[in-house]
Amino acid sequence: MASNDLEVYLTARTALITEERSIRRDFKELAKATEDELHADQIVRAIKLEEAKSIWAVDHPDTPNVFPGMAYLSARNLITKTKIFQIISKMPKGALLHSHLDAMVNASVMLKYALEEPALHIQVAAPLTKASLFSTLPAFRGLRPSEYSDAPSLTSSSYIPGTWVHIKRARDSFSTDLGGPEGFDAWVIGALTINPREAYETHNTVAKIWKKFQSTFDVVEGFTNFFPLKKKYIKDFLLSSIEDGISFVETRFTFFSEYLIDANGEDSVSHAEIFRTFGEIVQEVKDEMARQRRSDAFIGARIIYTTLRFVTCDELDWYLEDCIKLKQEFPDLVAGFDLVGSENDLKPIIYYIEPLLRFRSRVEELGLDLPFIFHAGETYGDGSEADNNLYDAILLGTKRIGHGFSLVKHPKLIEMCKEKGIALEVCPISNEILRLTSSVCTHPLASLINQGVPVALCSDDPSVFGNMGLSFDFFQVLMGSDINGLLTLRMLARQSLEHSTLADEEKAKAIVSWEKQWANFVKSITDGRIFEV
Amino acid sequence: MASNDLEVYLTARTALITEERSIRRDFKELAKATEDELHADQIVRAIKLEEAKSIWAVDHPDTPNVFPGMAYLSARNLITKTKIFQIISKMPKGALLHSHLDAMVNASVMLKYALEEPALHIQVAAPLTKASLFSTLPAFRGLRPSEYSDAPSLTSSSYIPGTWVHIKRARDSFSTDLGGPEGFDAWVIGALTINPREAYETHNTVAKIWKKFQSTFDVVEGFTNFFPLKKKYIKDFLLSSIEDGISFVETRFTFFSEYLIDANGEDSVSHAEIFRTFGEIVQEVKDEMARQRRSDAFIGARIIYTTLRFVTCDELDWYLEDCIKLKQEFPDLVAGFDLVGSENDLKPIIYYIEPLLRFRSRVEELGLDLPFIFHAGETYGDGSEADNNLYDAILLGTKRIGHGFSLVKHPKLIEMCKEKGIALEVCPISNEILRLTSSVCTHPLASLINQGVPVALCSDDPSVFGNMGLSFDFFQVLMGSDINGLLTLRMLARQSLEHSTLADEEKAKAIVSWEKQWANFVKSITDGRIFEV
Repeated sequence: MASNDLEVYLTARTALITEERSIRRDFKELAKATEDELHADQIVRAIKLEEAKSIWAVDHPDTPNVFPGMAYLSARNLITKTKIFQIISKMPKGALLHSHLDAMVNASVMLKYALEEPALHIQVAAPLTKASLFSTLPAFRGLRPSEYSDAPSLTSSSYIPGTWVHIKRARDSFSTDLGGPEGFDAWVIGALTINPREAYETHNTVAKIWKKFQSTFDVVEGFTNFFPLKKKYIKDFLLSSIEDGISFVETRFTFFSEYLIDANGEDSVSHAEIFRTFGEIVQEVKDEMARQRRSDAFIGARIIYTTLRFVTCDELDWYLEDCIKLKQEFPDLVAGFDLVGSENDLKPIIYYIEPLLRFRSRVEELGLDLPFIFHAGETYGDGSEADNNLYDAILLGTKRIGHGFSLVKHPKLIEMCKEKGIALEVCPISNEILRLTSSVCTHPLASLINQGVPVALCSDDPSVFGNMGLSFDFFQVLMGSDINGLLTLRMLARQSLEHSTLADEEKAKAIVSWEKQWANFVKSITDGRIFEV
Repeated sequence: MASNDLEVYLTARTALITEERSIRRDFKELAKATEDELHADQIVRAIKLEEAKSIWAVDHPDTPNVFPGMAYLSARNLITKTKIFQIISKMPKGALLHSHLDAMVNASVMLKYALEEPALHIQVAAPLTKASLFSTLPAFRGLRPSEYSDAPSLTSSSYIPGTWVHIKRARDSFSTDLGGPEGFDAWVIGALTINPREAYETHNTVAKIWKKFQSTFDVVEGFTNFFPLKKKYIKDFLLSSIEDGISFVETRFTFFSEYLIDANGEDSVSHAEIFRTFGEIVQEVKDEMARQRRSDAFIGARIIYTTLRFVTCDELDWYLEDCIKLKQEFPDLVAGFDLVGSENDLKPIIYYIEPLLRFRSRVEELGLDLPFIFHAGETYGDGSEADNNLYDAILLGTKRIGHGFSLVKHPKLIEMCKEKGIALEVCPISNEILRLTSSVCTHPLASLINQGVPVALCSDDPSVFGNMGLSFDFFQVLMGSDINGLLTLRMLARQSLEHSTLADEEKAKAIVSWEKQWANFVKSITDGRIFEV
């Protein structure tokens, strides 16, 4: 070969890789990174490499078949022992843009609060035995004082199925054969969460794990429809998010009944009251942060109004109108509108096209800033109804896309998302547990990032999956790619604020606050403060 | 809303979907499809839909967790009972462009032939017991007559580890405690194949399953390095491929030693003799097809010269020069050059850049049609060395890409593949068993097809995976997408011929032959002949 062939080749190679990498949205971050950031990035990359070998390449007593980015539920215990997780848990993460308000509090905390409620009762549809325990779901409800009962233990032979028992009494009297009070806790928490055996063995298909997933909501509703508990959960959610470095929240609230249940067991809490109370709690938390001189740590929270993908078109008209009224009353609290529930099984967006088009016209007429923020493409389908939801979400002008797991199969829609600045709310752990991918390594996220699609990382339903906050999701994304580094995480966090529904001025302020926290975080890596307990 | 809003919306929706679908390479096939083809496509879609419900949505006694496109090793028995498989197994499939010659014959057939060889002996490194059996690998070798031994049974207490025993004698004297002769067969076949438990449970990581995968080659080498067996395997491979509807083959032959072993146990069979014999067998098979008046069914076969990704640069120089000499001697039998072995563990292409650039210059000087046909991106890595092989494969002018599993993460390289007409040799079942994806549904193939990347479906190593022929791979691809139909399969089959190394005139003839077979196949679906036994 000619003597300069090698040189020519290597130059062309570098140019090609650079050209492709420049499509990524963290390419610019890299170019303008501070020396501290580059140094911190090097530190993180070195630890990541070291832990890939020392932790993620050897079998552990309870965890065989490990690798970096492996299935979350099996990896969780190991993750929490890593230095990378220690770093990420301190990272300022910007906004959490995709979550479901019924599933934001640690399951055992939810249960703990529930046990304190005098009105909260439990029933089961069949007698509880060792054999039936884990296939029988508890049902909870806040009762009117007149309905309080002195029914015997759920595990007593004289328990009549369907009878309400006070939750605390049910726990205290839970048969020792079934584990006593701790057995009660394990049973309830098992019904609120997905365990690794369920996800990776017994229910290892999308259809089966969705049934289990749906059942956790059937159970939790008994807690979250009871307004006194709901309020505590909202506050806990906001405070624990802040501790994980989340400074802004847009969370989905599923409206399905006209009223929630009040402390007296009455169906009396209107949607307006929910928003008013939500606003009050947000303010309380802000005040608390101000008292702690941590105002930068929390900008606020909003609700994405959602209803379910199985309502009729007439019913949807009612919810859409309700959403408009609430937006008019609480302009700073209503972020947008969405439909939720399994896309693979329930109605596609196109089924609701007439009410949705009417809504869009109404919103325009009224001059409201009330966008659709649709779930779409939460499927591995190719050309299925769930996959086709992506066309409708984008044509209807969705502000962001919830999941968009199947977007990677749509070259034209990817182009449109980039042009229109439609961000994807990507939930890597949720998608993995719900069996759309076997690990983050095979998740389409890497492809989307490399194509320059704007992305915000999200947790979806952490009470069910056990991925509280955003640290676990950021962890998986960092470990699942050799390209991703600290500046990728920076981009993802910053994008979450950029693609929020905050108005321009608020957004600018939020980003300034976040940049301050980010600089401090970077400094704590380079000076080693982050590893001090 | 304005009265025509809905109409405007639906028109825009159809236009958008059509615009995106037109990027697919089967879009043109659809436009020019015959009435028969459209009718056959409808028939196939209806059966697919029916079987998705009747077979792939219910649990079967031995197969829980089923779904369309599910993991191959668990699904295999059900697949063979479907009407869709019955149809696909009769389909003319064009060319098989990615396969490894050591792994192309059903494992029990390989063993059957081996048992007939007087020179073929077996040894084990440790005494065989119930406990050690499935962790002890057999080693085979054709011996010189002077080396033949009358050593006792492998399972006898007096067997000295490392002693050669004739294979037939070893089988006949296999202890009844270990299952007798059938136990011997199960043990050998277990060492040549991957079973579902290994793939989906015990070795459920890429690194672990690759070790098992590699061990099957360590075992099979004892058969395939013995030239008398090799010849039988080549003929069996070609004949069974033809029965599966494959009319042309470019298969990878791994050259690592200078000679194969002849019938007398001597290292005497040169690379040139291998090619000469390969050419003779191809001619025999052609003659046989001509006698059967089925000349259209078999166009021929070629070898892609490969060596292993762990040789030194100096050694590679020798293999590359050897490849050039063979191309000069057997221009119609040498298709190209490649490197094989785990990309995740062995040397990347860039490590060999100097010898590879020298080779390219030499080939150009000599005016040879001897392209690289590189394995690249057989990984779920993102920015790893294995992933980066894609840059080098393409910059070095690869004719096709073996696997290219990670290409989906490379927007710029996808563009280049489309512009330059670089086809991907996609092996969906191989990728799934080797744990790059949990099922064909989550394989990047759908994304690549939707982006218009040229693809040829391939089987890779069917003796190890049990996906003999191409029917199983086509089956999975059809079931794993709602867009894919009969005309998608048509496109994939036709592309395999278009992207072969056949010269223009031969290629045109091959395509004409294939079109004839295709028309007959389509007709057999519409008139129901295909379902007659």
